[in-house]
Amino acid sequence: MTVNFALLGAGRIGKVHAKAIAGNGDARLVAVSDAFAEAAQTVADTYGCAVRSIDEIEADKSIDAVVICTPTDTHADLIERFARAGKAVFCEKPIDLNLARVKQCLGVVKETGAVLMVGFNRRFDPHFAAVRAAIDEGHIGPVEMVQITSRDPGPPPISYIKSSGGILRDMTIHDFDMARFLLGEEPETVFATASVLVDPAIGEAGDFDSVSVILTTASGRQCSISNSRRATYGYDQRIEVLGAAGAIAAENQRPVSIEIANAQGFTRPPLHDFFMTRYTEAYAAEIASFIAAIVEGKSASPSGEDGLRALALADAALLSIKEGRAVKLSEIL
Amino acid sequence: MTVNFALLGAGRIGKVHAKAIAGNGDARLVAVSDAFAEAAQTVADTYGCAVRSIDEIEADKSIDAVVICTPTDTHADLIERFARAGKAVFCEKPIDLNLARVKQCLGVVKETGAVLMVGFNRRFDPHFAAVRAAIDEGHIGPVEMVQITSRDPGPPPISYIKSSGGILRDMTIHDFDMARFLLGEEPETVFATASVLVDPAIGEAGDFDSVSVILTTASGRQCSISNSRRATYGYDQRIEVLGAAGAIAAENQRPVSIEIANAQGFTRPPLHDFFMTRYTEAYAAEIASFIAAIVEGKSASPSGEDGLRALALADAALLSIKEGRAVKLSEIL
Amino acid sequence: MTVNFALLGAGRIGKVHAKAIAGNGDARLVAVSDAFAEAAQTVADTYGCAVRSIDEIEADKSIDAVVICTPTDTHADLIERFARAGKAVFCEKPIDLNLARVKQCLGVVKETGAVLMVGFNRRFDPHFAAVRAAIDEGHIGPVEMVQITSRDPGPPPISYIKSSGGILRDMTIHDFDMARFLLGEEPETVFATASVLVDPAIGEAGDFDSVSVILTTASGRQCSISNSRRATYGYDQRIEVLGAAGAIAAENQRPVSIEIANAQGFTRPPLHDFFMTRYTEAYAAEIASFIAAIVEGKSASPSGEDGLRALALADAALLSIKEGRAVKLSEIL
Amino acid sequence: MTVNFALLGAGRIGKVHAKAIAGNGDARLVAVSDAFAEAAQTVADTYGCAVRSIDEIEADKSIDAVVICTPTDTHADLIERFARAGKAVFCEKPIDLNLARVKQCLGVVKETGAVLMVGFNRRFDPHFAAVRAAIDEGHIGPVEMVQITSRDPGPPPISYIKSSGGILRDMTIHDFDMARFLLGEEPETVFATASVLVDPAIGEAGDFDSVSVILTTASGRQCSISNSRRATYGYDQRIEVLGAAGAIAAENQRPVSIEIANAQGFTRPPLHDFFMTRYTEAYAAEIASFIAAIVEGKSASPSGEDGLRALALADAALLSIKEGRAVKLSEIL
Repeated sequence: MTVNFALLGAGRIGKVHAKAIAGNGDARLVAVSDAFAEAAQTVADTYGCAVRSIDEIEADKSIDAVVICTPTDTHADLIERFARAGKAVFCEKPIDLNLARVKQCLGVVKETGAVLMVGFNRRFDPHFAAVRAAIDEGHIGPVEMVQITSRDPGPPPISYIKSSGGILRDMTIHDFDMARFLLGEEPETVFATASVLVDPAIGEAGDFDSVSVILTTASGRQCSISNSRRATYGYDQRIEVLGAAGAIAAENQRPVSIEIANAQGFTRPPLHDFFMTRYTEAYAAEIASFIAAIVEGKSASPSGEDGLRALALADAALLSIKEGRAVKLSEIL
Repeated sequence: MTVNFALLGAGRIGKVHAKAIAGNGDARLVAVSDAFAEAAQTVADTYGCAVRSIDEIEADKSIDAVVICTPTDTHADLIERFARAGKAVFCEKPIDLNLARVKQCLGVVKETGAVLMVGFNRRFDPHFAAVRAAIDEGHIGPVEMVQITSRDPGPPPISYIKSSGGILRDMTIHDFDMARFLLGEEPETVFATASVLVDPAIGEAGDFDSVSVILTTASGRQCSISNSRRATYGYDQRIEVLGAAGAIAAENQRPVSIEIANAQGFTRPPLHDFFMTRYTEAYAAEIASFIAAIVEGKSASPSGEDGLRALALADAALLSIKEGRAVKLSEIL
Repeated sequence: MTVNFALLGAGRIGKVHAKAIAGNGDARLVAVSDAFAEAAQTVADTYGCAVRSIDEIEADKSIDAVVICTPTDTHADLIERFARAGKAVFCEKPIDLNLARVKQCLGVVKETGAVLMVGFNRRFDPHFAAVRAAIDEGHIGPVEMVQITSRDPGPPPISYIKSSGGILRDMTIHDFDMARFLLGEEPETVFATASVLVDPAIGEAGDFDSVSVILTTASGRQCSISNSRRATYGYDQRIEVLGAAGAIAAENQRPVSIEIANAQGFTRPPLHDFFMTRYTEAYAAEIASFIAAIVEGKSASPSGEDGLRALALADAALLSIKEGRAVKLSEIL
Repeated sequence: MTVNFALLGAGRIGKVHAKAIAGNGDARLVAVSDAFAEAAQTVADTYGCAVRSIDEIEADKSIDAVVICTPTDTHADLIERFARAGKAVFCEKPIDLNLARVKQCLGVVKETGAVLMVGFNRRFDPHFAAVRAAIDEGHIGPVEMVQITSRDPGPPPISYIKSSGGILRDMTIHDFDMARFLLGEEPETVFATASVLVDPAIGEAGDFDSVSVILTTASGRQCSISNSRRATYGYDQRIEVLGAAGAIAAENQRPVSIEIANAQGFTRPPLHDFFMTRYTEAYAAEIASFIAAIVEGKSASPSGEDGLRALALADAALLSIKEGRAVKLSEIL
């Protein structure tokens, strides 16, 4: 079976997925749609597919699956629409910034029985996936403590920050998903603290740029998350897991692994400066997993429920910051 | 000037300090005292000094300084007594497990004008000291976030845990001091979570074995601490500091730095299995710093106030664990 | 300009190049030829190109360039034939195992003025290329000593060894090219020693499996090469360059960069187990460089002369092994 | 038993050994001798021993052992004299720069039955010793190839070079001993190449500053050595051993193991800048081993024979450089 794909949204991340689809032997990119005709045309030219409207794609019975890379506030509507149209849906995170809207949307998806996958790409990073695999293989025994360090090279534009839902729902949400991926138990309580250390304008926009979080599970497993919008040395993405019998760490990835030694010492070049080059392999593996789920008729993972839970953790963290106390997820969800 | 020393307490840590004193060109170990005559005699034989009672040491005008390595519940009394006797005092941490008693003791020290130094040895580790120096030299700009990972190879005996004041006052207290050493601002609020994952007997003794802490300062600097009483791979002691212009990390120390490669991969031997071999250089540098302070007539650091503040952070963390909220240090101190 | 390519030889390495051509925006794979019709058809199906005979490709004026991945003993003939047909030629190393034949072939190429590039892919590895760039940028001053460690995960079949020209012409030849790439001066003398340590059958086939080489240049720069046909921990490929002002090293590449710590120590997974996964990026960059040379009308590098010189170093090394003395390249070339 | 020591030669290395003896529970430094009275007095004051003449030390029946750290041209005479006086002898390398003189001297030692140990301190480095131990424990199977990288931070004064016997007998001799320590078979042939790249004055003094060597054993094991008198990044001392089942490497040692990350990349401080700080632990372990041999009445290692063989390899390397051919050790020894 070859899965026929339509791409909704031909921006930066849309192009990444277009490339992954084009390079996958079980899939074909047949249509692309974008509010900006030019952006759609560029993708169409590169991969030899048609520019279509969303209505046309919805109506086209030959299209099996859509990849939603449009602005966040359109996600839930598009998911519902294409789930009802009987197509498998891959949607970039988040489903929506409003938890109630996400629940409503997932209700529709459930009704339709559609395949839905949410774009938490980091689960597909070969190094982070290897950490999960090593845990499953019993290398470190039961998980006890997880540490996630996740720092951007620099802050996004203030305009982006204003519409992003804030650092917790935009950036930490990836780490909340990673925490759930690694802890092996649902987080039960959330404590978070946040401050503005990088750029006062971020604070003026009502957001934070530096965040520390502690999650705990019912059995007492703990996860700490450290976020910053600025790391001058590149895109800093590390995880560590301590278990009863050992520990596993995934180191940072480097575009070039040389070391220059001189009288000043031993210097390795900075890390990747962009999430797309850092996670190139993850994006390809993510789409491959989605395609495999469709071909094999299985449910896709991370699911809509995963999207919901990560958002709920972000909301709990925001409440924790506001009230200076540990918030139970049950207060939110 | 040669500083004449008496050692109070000839146990494990007492012997470490005896060796450091004996190896220091500006100091001489002249007397040793211990409740167990045999322990005192062993030190006396090794370093050619006299076994004396505490009374004799107090009365001996030729003794300039004492090193207190006796049980914790004797520390405050001995500090007061030898401060009043006009001797410089080095005391292993903690001054006392009770904050009010510590304040009272420091009041006496202040009255007497005695030199008092508290044994937070990690500040003298050459690697951690190099982190502090690199911050001072401006390599990473203003400090923003500190991460301290501190894990013991295995839990101490339950008998020790019962008299230790608990993991926060016994183990995390070192990390509280390190946080203060690195943050460059006093922690203002403390959030802590703790659980029993390693050994239920630790929980039955009223203590925890796994702890996560977040400290925040007035300007929003953050420090996260991760503790466990068990790390099968050895004594895990790392710090990371993120600043506005970069980051610094101090890696783990290894007794042997070889790597064996075979079909299973690349394997380096475990870390040190004991805090005394890990911090050998730190202990020697600590005593050297104390001696230098005496010789130069300066105040010693870490001071009694440093001991007080680290204990207060531990107490705040315990209250935070109990109440599930961020506790202000001003509630405690 | 889009460069139209024909692929000669649809085996393992041919497929790698087919993929690189297909993924390059300035090139199109239009034809493929192979003695095994099935192999050619597989490539044709995957990349949507035609299966053709070598005669047809030669005669097709619309084909601008060929990539030669056929058996070694056909290389020189095909280079001459397609150079005469006015096509740009990329040929896998070696041009031929016989030095005289290589010279003759390069004579024909020169006459025709054809673009010829020889497949020393390692020059295009991003890490090794970064070493070269760092030298050019003056980070280590004039080059003094080069160390190349190059070990295969395991020996090839004896049948391959018999037709390979031996380890020096098959495996070390890559390191000879790398030495020339990094030394910045032509090697003038060669000393080599070789033994059979991995498999006696390799010795019975008249070859070696373990080789050490020292090259020296006129000004006294030195390069040492260490080869083995067996490294249980994976494909070991490292270079180090010492200069007057510093040193540069390119570390091994790892498919997964995690580390598992337990009571046995800290273990990272083995290296790549195959040259094609190790050098994936290098193969793509190599073809991109060839395409760029054609589009820009420039000479390609590594050139036929580079192929000749690497082979001459292999022949000199063989003579050195035989006679137990340093051999001057001028004795060979 | 406490071993009474006399130190002959109170210079730089003499002081290192004095400290090691003073810190060893089984030994006592009772006398020191030096042509410069002041140097001897400094050691005497620091360790509370007597300044004596060589004659007095020879005559003193209470002295069990001597450590010879005098100039090289006095070594053989002193070894003979103190062996005849019935004392255990530790001598800094080399025994003599002349092979015939070394043989003669060892003949005398043999006659007297004296304990003789030669100061190849690197065998006692905990990291290199761990490599040897890992081989012995079978971690990598039979040894096949050894790589030794040994580079000084900077060249010694020309005056030193003139009396040193040259880089092969002064510096590479340590690597020849390390090669023998690791190969598990005697080197049979030596090929060496050498040049002057660091300082022309070294060449004018008749010496080299950059050396590459290949040693081979009867069964075909190979060892390559790479030396330079200049490494701007510090004292570069690494070994790698490839075996049939795996490989072992000993990494460089660093005085401070921090890493600073910023926009320029990740920088670790330089290596040790001096052999004495690099090999501090090795020197102490070396003397401890000598003392243990005396106390237990065993022969010491490395032996006089080890000193002889390392020097013979240096002489063979010099002949190889001169004649541009592999030299058999049997031509020399």
